[in-house]
Amino acid sequence: MQRQTIQSPAVAAPRFRYSPCVHIGDTVQLSGMIALDPGTGALMAGGPGAEAAFILAILQRALPDYGVTLDQLLIARIYTTRMDLFGEINAAWEAVFTPDVTPPARTSIGVSALPLGASVEIEFTFVQERRP
Amino acid sequence: MQRQTIQSPAVAAPRFRYSPCVHIGDTVQLSGMIALDPGTGALMAGGPGAEAAFILAILQRALPDYGVTLDQLLIARIYTTRMDLFGEINAAWEAVFTPDVTPPARTSIGVSALPLGASVEIEFTFVQERRP
Amino acid sequence: MQRQTIQSPAVAAPRFRYSPCVHIGDTVQLSGMIALDPGTGALMAGGPGAEAAFILAILQRALPDYGVTLDQLLIARIYTTRMDLFGEINAAWEAVFTPDVTPPARTSIGVSALPLGASVEIEFTFVQERRP
Repeated sequence: MQRQTIQSPAVAAPRFRYSPCVHIGDTVQLSGMIALDPGTGALMAGGPGAEAAFILAILQRALPDYGVTLDQLLIARIYTTRMDLFGEINAAWEAVFTPDVTPPARTSIGVSALPLGASVEIEFTFVQERRP
Repeated sequence: MQRQTIQSPAVAAPRFRYSPCVHIGDTVQLSGMIALDPGTGALMAGGPGAEAAFILAILQRALPDYGVTLDQLLIARIYTTRMDLFGEINAAWEAVFTPDVTPPARTSIGVSALPLGASVEIEFTFVQERRP
Repeated sequence: MQRQTIQSPAVAAPRFRYSPCVHIGDTVQLSGMIALDPGTGALMAGGPGAEAAFILAILQRALPDYGVTLDQLLIARIYTTRMDLFGEINAAWEAVFTPDVTPPARTSIGVSALPLGASVEIEFTFVQERRP
């Protein structure tokens, strides 16, 4: 059982030298995601709400490749340069984590800058239960 | 062994859709905590030092519900909008992590905004040792 | 298998009450590192690129003491007050994570302040594969 990196065609190719998804033991760790179109590599227009919705859509498309489900999501860390528009981000979140879905832990932080001019970045950590 | 979310009456009910404490496998992950009074839901007055002390007090009250102890604390991540008053936050920290207590890892970051106008947010990750 | 803290002479002694490296179960968690000279305790001069290179050099010197290798690096979280000079930080990163090395996950965040006036802080999480 060694470290594995997992690629998904749903996620834009990295512009820098990092692995979008790393799997070691029980843990599946994603790099912080910004709203990059996997086709063009360009940042999604439309502001924080649109970016958050796009990140969550990309995540959901990549989950089968990453071998995890939202039920295994431990925590999401949301970073935004527009905490004043956090309501938009939260609305995108609540469209996925509806009342019938148990949500993960979440930490939300207002920051001064994000890569490539993004206004939202979300980092996801999954833990797979170990079957005895 | 599946993902479990754990509630504690010591912690203010979430205002957004997230789980304050998530347990999967060996890991007990808390959402970033701000100094919300569990009775009123209002942010604690008094500035960074008072907020940090309140968060640490709430944490300690919730630990029995969460099934972990400070000996199992892997890391605390401290986010503050008032890095200029970090001494206050650190004094609250040192009132809990006294010289006779082995402290966890810690990462401290100055940020531009936090939810609900808080000046301090702390995220805690615990790992339970696995008994063979 | 209990929580252990690990010291390395390669890393500057903490100025605050935290453990630079905590090992529980499969996880080896480092505290956020800034470019402190382990001899003098002073912050490395030279700006973001020099700080990032110094942090990565210190990390590599400490790895044998910490009992992990770069192959076990799950994620690096880079915080910087100078996102405008991220290219410098990334150049230091790519000097270590060369094309023949599988890189970890990475999250990069622009922040408003870091401890002791640093312009770069990096937090590393390792997971050791469990041998069956």
